[in-house]
Amino acid sequence: MAEPLRIAILGLGTVGGGVARVLLEQRERIACRAGRRIEIRRVLVREVGKSRDVDLPPGCVTTDVREIVGDPEIAVAVETMGGVDPARRYVLDLLNAGKDVVTANKALLYAHGEELFRVARERGRTIAFEASVAGGVPVIATVCQALAANQITSIEAVLNGTSNFILSEMFHQGRPYEQAVALAQQHGYAEADPTMDVDGTDAAQKLTILTQLAFGTKVPLEAFPRQGIDTLELADLIFADELGYRVKLLAVAKLDHGRLEMHVQPTLVRRGRPLAELDGVYNRIGIAGDVVGKVWLTGLGAGRMATASAVLADLIDVATGRAQLTFPRLDVWSERPPIPILPADEIERRYYLRFNVEDRPHVFADIADILGRNGISLASIIQHEAPEPDEETGDESEQPIVPLVVMTHRTREGSIRAADAELDSVSALRPPRVCMPVAD
Amino acid sequence: MAEPLRIAILGLGTVGGGVARVLLEQRERIACRAGRRIEIRRVLVREVGKSRDVDLPPGCVTTDVREIVGDPEIAVAVETMGGVDPARRYVLDLLNAGKDVVTANKALLYAHGEELFRVARERGRTIAFEASVAGGVPVIATVCQALAANQITSIEAVLNGTSNFILSEMFHQGRPYEQAVALAQQHGYAEADPTMDVDGTDAAQKLTILTQLAFGTKVPLEAFPRQGIDTLELADLIFADELGYRVKLLAVAKLDHGRLEMHVQPTLVRRGRPLAELDGVYNRIGIAGDVVGKVWLTGLGAGRMATASAVLADLIDVATGRAQLTFPRLDVWSERPPIPILPADEIERRYYLRFNVEDRPHVFADIADILGRNGISLASIIQHEAPEPDEETGDESEQPIVPLVVMTHRTREGSIRAADAELDSVSALRPPRVCMPVAD
Repeated sequence: MAEPLRIAILGLGTVGGGVARVLLEQRERIACRAGRRIEIRRVLVREVGKSRDVDLPPGCVTTDVREIVGDPEIAVAVETMGGVDPARRYVLDLLNAGKDVVTANKALLYAHGEELFRVARERGRTIAFEASVAGGVPVIATVCQALAANQITSIEAVLNGTSNFILSEMFHQGRPYEQAVALAQQHGYAEADPTMDVDGTDAAQKLTILTQLAFGTKVPLEAFPRQGIDTLELADLIFADELGYRVKLLAVAKLDHGRLEMHVQPTLVRRGRPLAELDGVYNRIGIAGDVVGKVWLTGLGAGRMATASAVLADLIDVATGRAQLTFPRLDVWSERPPIPILPADEIERRYYLRFNVEDRPHVFADIADILGRNGISLASIIQHEAPEPDEETGDESEQPIVPLVVMTHRTREGSIRAADAELDSVSALRPPRVCMPVAD
Repeated sequence: MAEPLRIAILGLGTVGGGVARVLLEQRERIACRAGRRIEIRRVLVREVGKSRDVDLPPGCVTTDVREIVGDPEIAVAVETMGGVDPARRYVLDLLNAGKDVVTANKALLYAHGEELFRVARERGRTIAFEASVAGGVPVIATVCQALAANQITSIEAVLNGTSNFILSEMFHQGRPYEQAVALAQQHGYAEADPTMDVDGTDAAQKLTILTQLAFGTKVPLEAFPRQGIDTLELADLIFADELGYRVKLLAVAKLDHGRLEMHVQPTLVRRGRPLAELDGVYNRIGIAGDVVGKVWLTGLGAGRMATASAVLADLIDVATGRAQLTFPRLDVWSERPPIPILPADEIERRYYLRFNVEDRPHVFADIADILGRNGISLASIIQHEAPEPDEETGDESEQPIVPLVVMTHRTREGSIRAADAELDSVSALRPPRVCMPVAD
């Protein structure tokens, strides 16, 4: 058997700890699959003395990254620190010192992927990053290797398990948003500050990594519509159900006549379709290729061991030499011109609109007039009768507020935005106004 | 760019023709992904003069495999002939002549995989076979690479799209079995002789290939229960629905206390679960690993372009050199002792039983007695009232025949078989008797 592969792990948190545990507990299995032993030589931590649930080799823990960068025996560094700084600096130093890098850090790749990839190529090194998108689901390998004969034509996915868990809890258990978030935190599915998960940033960063691999186009988050689930109300999930849909935080990138349509938004998906039926803290990715048709991948998109499994697959790929053959052939290096992004205003879809209206004459006419003048035509309308006035208080002076739900025919996002601006002038409308696209 | 990779294609049928077409129409794309041009140098066909829908380079068609075996310029042969003979002989000759082989031929691998793999290793050659299981779905790559850090603990799958299409048509359109088969043939989803698809052979061969990769154990078809959908009646799908289940041709291999439980059988799967909700000519594979949890893959399991996509991914893997690194590390070479197969009689599950019984006293008591004496305990029973006797004919002499459906608690397949033998003696039972397991 070949020389052992000596590695360092940067960060012994959730994922890094999981990686270390499998490497230590499954030495034989990993050695057999990798063709050589994989030996943990150094682990970068913040505090040396802290007690941990992995039984590391004595003396391997350090707080000084220079002991890793400067150690010529270390061939590969596993970056599981998370965050952009100092991860960027460390990865650059490691690449410059001639080490390959395995990373699970999607925020780092989104922010500095171009620079890191360029430096890796200049130095003849490899960056492997399967774990950066969709945890244990092999979506990077599928896009870059399994579908290598294809021009990918669309990616439609649920890429944030936390949001999906929250939406499932809201819909199936009738919990309001705040309660569902609290439950996600209790289960360890959401951070103490869940902003990046619920506002769509996390899903959007993952989508841009996939988009770069599938379409060779680097897209900043600002270039496409992005909205989270943090403004949704249970009422919208119930109205969607009444209309035959589920609401999912959908991340979409698809080719449309030579341009790339992208968005991350809570979206109505018809019941029975694969993305509609995904409940709980899972990811599901549908990838269409011009040769293969459509392939679906589903699994845990985060969590200690699922992500560790992907990091270890990359590490085994580096140990066998496969990763070094894959990295230089990624589409990010292709010289074809980047695919232009379809401007948000030109995206054409159906929409779900919910208004809170005062229950008095001509309100609906005012709304319909504004929509109609903006070229938005209505496919269906739901307005239930207002509840009876409260008999106890007998207060009829206050106008009752009722929800009005409209499904439009296909229309441009630009028309929706123009109408939305005009709707500000309708005094009978109370906040919030909800607008969600409908998946094709 | 490196020297072009010169290849031969053996067999220009459905899949071979698809492979040739993409190679010819997408030269630039394939060259970019493979790191070198892929050039079709020879194509083996049965008739040279036949008109074809691919525009092959002039003079490359041959009917003589020796022109391929003996051509030192050809580095890789793509075997898309199908069948066991002469494919085995040709592949052996090609490996012995120093060529790598990409194959989509599951029947060949099932029958002679061990020999072919051994010869390939002795000669330092590679066999790549992603296309042999589940068409365009990257299940081999997932088992062997993406989940390389895992001990796979179970595989549960729908591996035969034809059977799944037939079951979907029967259930959703209310078609009898024969009509659904005819429709599958019209759509090109079933061969003129659909036996291998509908009797479970095709799914079982695929399962053994996956089992060998995931568990390092070569299992002959005779070692596990195998049944097709060809004895099912629409009535069973409807009773299953009444009980809250769908019927799927499930292929299962799972570790159970150090032994391998395997079976390919029409199986009741609770509604809402991933395998229950798969309709149409698709494959879906659930793979559980001890690190990653469960990953699901779904897509077209057969058909010209889906299978061609997998063949081309393998070809690109050979061109980059990745496949040559993967092949020697497959678990089939592992020296660990093979995992023993759980004897069929010891498999423990719940069962669905349907009897056609004469509607007269003590029949149910007789059946329940036999089941009970064999240790089979009943979880639920459905017997609807017999239809009114026909008023026109008024014939009451003939005993009406009514279906009796029983769901058992967990019991051993051995008890079911013993009870089945005894039930032969109950004169009030009319054929057929239907017995299907229920998925855990």
